[in-house]
Amino acid sequence: MSVKIKDLARQLNLSVATISKALKDSHEISPETKQRVFELAKKLNYTPNPYASSLRKRGSKTIAVVLPEVADSFFSLAINGIESVAHDKGYHVLIYLTHESFEREESILKEFQSGRVDGILISVSGETRTSTHVREVMAAGMPVVFFDRVCEDVETAKIITNDFESSYHATSHMLKAGCKKIVYLSTSSALSINNKRIEGYMKALMDNDKKPPGCVISCTSDSKGNYRIIRDLLESKNRPDGLIASVEKLTTPIYLACADLNISIPEKIKVISFTNLQAALILTPTLTTVTQPAFEMGKTAASLLFNALEKTNYNLAKENVVIPSSLVIRNSTN
Amino acid sequence: MSVKIKDLARQLNLSVATISKALKDSHEISPETKQRVFELAKKLNYTPNPYASSLRKRGSKTIAVVLPEVADSFFSLAINGIESVAHDKGYHVLIYLTHESFEREESILKEFQSGRVDGILISVSGETRTSTHVREVMAAGMPVVFFDRVCEDVETAKIITNDFESSYHATSHMLKAGCKKIVYLSTSSALSINNKRIEGYMKALMDNDKKPPGCVISCTSDSKGNYRIIRDLLESKNRPDGLIASVEKLTTPIYLACADLNISIPEKIKVISFTNLQAALILTPTLTTVTQPAFEMGKTAASLLFNALEKTNYNLAKENVVIPSSLVIRNSTN
Repeated sequence: MSVKIKDLARQLNLSVATISKALKDSHEISPETKQRVFELAKKLNYTPNPYASSLRKRGSKTIAVVLPEVADSFFSLAINGIESVAHDKGYHVLIYLTHESFEREESILKEFQSGRVDGILISVSGETRTSTHVREVMAAGMPVVFFDRVCEDVETAKIITNDFESSYHATSHMLKAGCKKIVYLSTSSALSINNKRIEGYMKALMDNDKKPPGCVISCTSDSKGNYRIIRDLLESKNRPDGLIASVEKLTTPIYLACADLNISIPEKIKVISFTNLQAALILTPTLTTVTQPAFEMGKTAASLLFNALEKTNYNLAKENVVIPSSLVIRNSTN
Repeated sequence: MSVKIKDLARQLNLSVATISKALKDSHEISPETKQRVFELAKKLNYTPNPYASSLRKRGSKTIAVVLPEVADSFFSLAINGIESVAHDKGYHVLIYLTHESFEREESILKEFQSGRVDGILISVSGETRTSTHVREVMAAGMPVVFFDRVCEDVETAKIITNDFESSYHATSHMLKAGCKKIVYLSTSSALSINNKRIEGYMKALMDNDKKPPGCVISCTSDSKGNYRIIRDLLESKNRPDGLIASVEKLTTPIYLACADLNISIPEKIKVISFTNLQAALILTPTLTTVTQPAFEMGKTAASLLFNALEKTNYNLAKENVVIPSSLVIRNSTN
C-alpha cells in the first residue's frame, strides 16, 4: 500500500488539511510543523505530490506503456495496436523501457503513483519475479492492464497469446518432419510465457511415441554470446536436428552459425523462431515462424484500459483474453 | 511565440499576479475577472499550467524522445544510446511516437509547454515542413536537441550523420562495380536527410565519366505498395542494374521481388540499403549496407541535452555534431 496524506495525518495527530498545506510549503504552517511532516514523509517514502488530485480530476489524457525493449518486432507492432486505439480516443501514449531490468520497472511504476498518467499497459521485464510494485500503483487508483508478459498473481486484465499450444504445435510439427533431437533455445526463465512455452515443448516430446529427450538451453541478451552458445551446440557430438528459438534475436546467430559450419537448413537441421520479422520471408531458406498477434494484443489491451477509464463500475479483474498465435510453415522446416 | 501570462495581463490591463491567481481559480479573484481571463486565455490558445513553475523548479527528472517510429533498427539503437546516458544521470526517458504525422508531432510538443519534461530530443516526422512548433516549445524555456532528422532553420544542437557523403560513396561503389542504371528508392521528400542523400547520389552520377541518368522513385509506408512499386520497376523495359534503398523497410520487398522474378542479386542487380538490421548478415546474398552510428548519435544527443540542463550559460545553438556512417560492403554488390 502506498502512503497517503491521511496516514501522515494519523501518525502526527494533525489534520489532513494541515499535512496538505505543509507539503505545499504554505505560509500558514509553522516551520517546525513543516519539518515534522517532511521528516515523516521521507521516512515512510511518501511520494510528494501536491498536484495529484487536480491532475487526476482533469485527466492527463495520457496512458503509459511499460515495455522491456523496442528492438523486437513484437513490441513495435504491439505499440502500433495500442496507438491505433489511443489516437481515436485523443490520448497520448508514453513509452517507458525497462531494458529487462526489474529495478527500472519498479522505479518507473513508483513515479506513476504521482498521477502522471491515467492508466498503464505493461509487459514485465525478464527479471520480474514479484508483483508488489504493480499492486502498489493499482492501490493508488491506477488501472493496469498486462499484455504478453504478465504477473499471474495480480488480479487485473491480462491479454496473452496461447504460448503453451504454440510451442506444442511447433514441436509437433518438427517431430512430424522427422526431427529426433530438438533443442529449445530459451531466454530468462522467470517469465510465465517462457515457462509455458517450455512446458508446451516438453509435452509435445512426451506425447510422441518415441519420447525423444528434451533439452532447454538458456541464451543471453548479447548477440556474440548467443552465437558462441549456438555454435558450441552445433559443434557438439550430439548435434541437434531441430532448433526452436523462443525470441527473434536468436534467428541471426542460428543462421550465421549454420552457414559458418556448413550445416544446411532444413536438410541437416530444422529451425523455427518466435518472431514477427518481415525478414523471415527473404531468408534462405525462408523461416518457419510462430507469429504472434502483436497488433491485436496491443489493440485489445488498450481497449480494455479505456473501458476502465470511461465506464464506472467496470471490473478489469474479470478480463482475461487469449489471442492465438499462428504457426507459419516455410522452408526452414520443409 | 507561445502566449504567456504577461501577454494576458497586458491585454486585459491586469497584473500578472491577478492573472495567475485567476487561472488558479483563486477565491481572491472575482468571478467576472476570472471569466474575462479564461475567455482571453482560450482565444489566444494559452496552455493553462498552474504547476509549470513548481515542476520546472523541482525538475521532472524526465526527458522526452520524440520519434517517427520504433519499427526501424536505427531508432531502437538510438534509444539505447539515449538511455545509456539518461540512466547514469538518474533520468527517466519517455518515448513519444509521431508515426510520421506532423499533426501528432505538433500536439506532442504543445503538451511539453506545460513542463511535463525537462528537455526534448527529437527526430522529426516525414511530414514536417515548418518549425514553429519547435520554436514555441523552445520559447517556453525547454531545451531541444535534434538528432538525425532535423529542422535546419532552428538554432539549437543538431546531431546528424554524413548523409550526402554516405550516399555518394554508396553510389560510387555501385558505379565501380559496373552498374549503368542505378535507381534510388526514396521516402518522404520533405526530410532534409532524404534530400541530402539524393544530392549525394546525383553528385556521384555527375562525377562519373559516363554520367548515367539519375532516377529517384518515391515509395510509401505500406509494404504491399512498396512490393508493387519495386516489382513494376523490375518488370519495366529499362530495368535497373542497381538499387539503393534509403530505408531498411524497403529491403524485404526488394529481395522478395527479385526472388519472385528470378533476378539474381548481385549478378543481375546490385543492392545497397541504409539499415542497421542484424539480418543483413544472414540474407542470401548478404546485404551491403550504409550503417549509421545510431547508438552514438543517441548518446551524443542526450549528452548535449544534459549539458544544457546542468550547466548555466551553456549554448546549445553552437553544437553541431556530424558522426559518419560506414559503407559495409557485402555480397549484394560483389
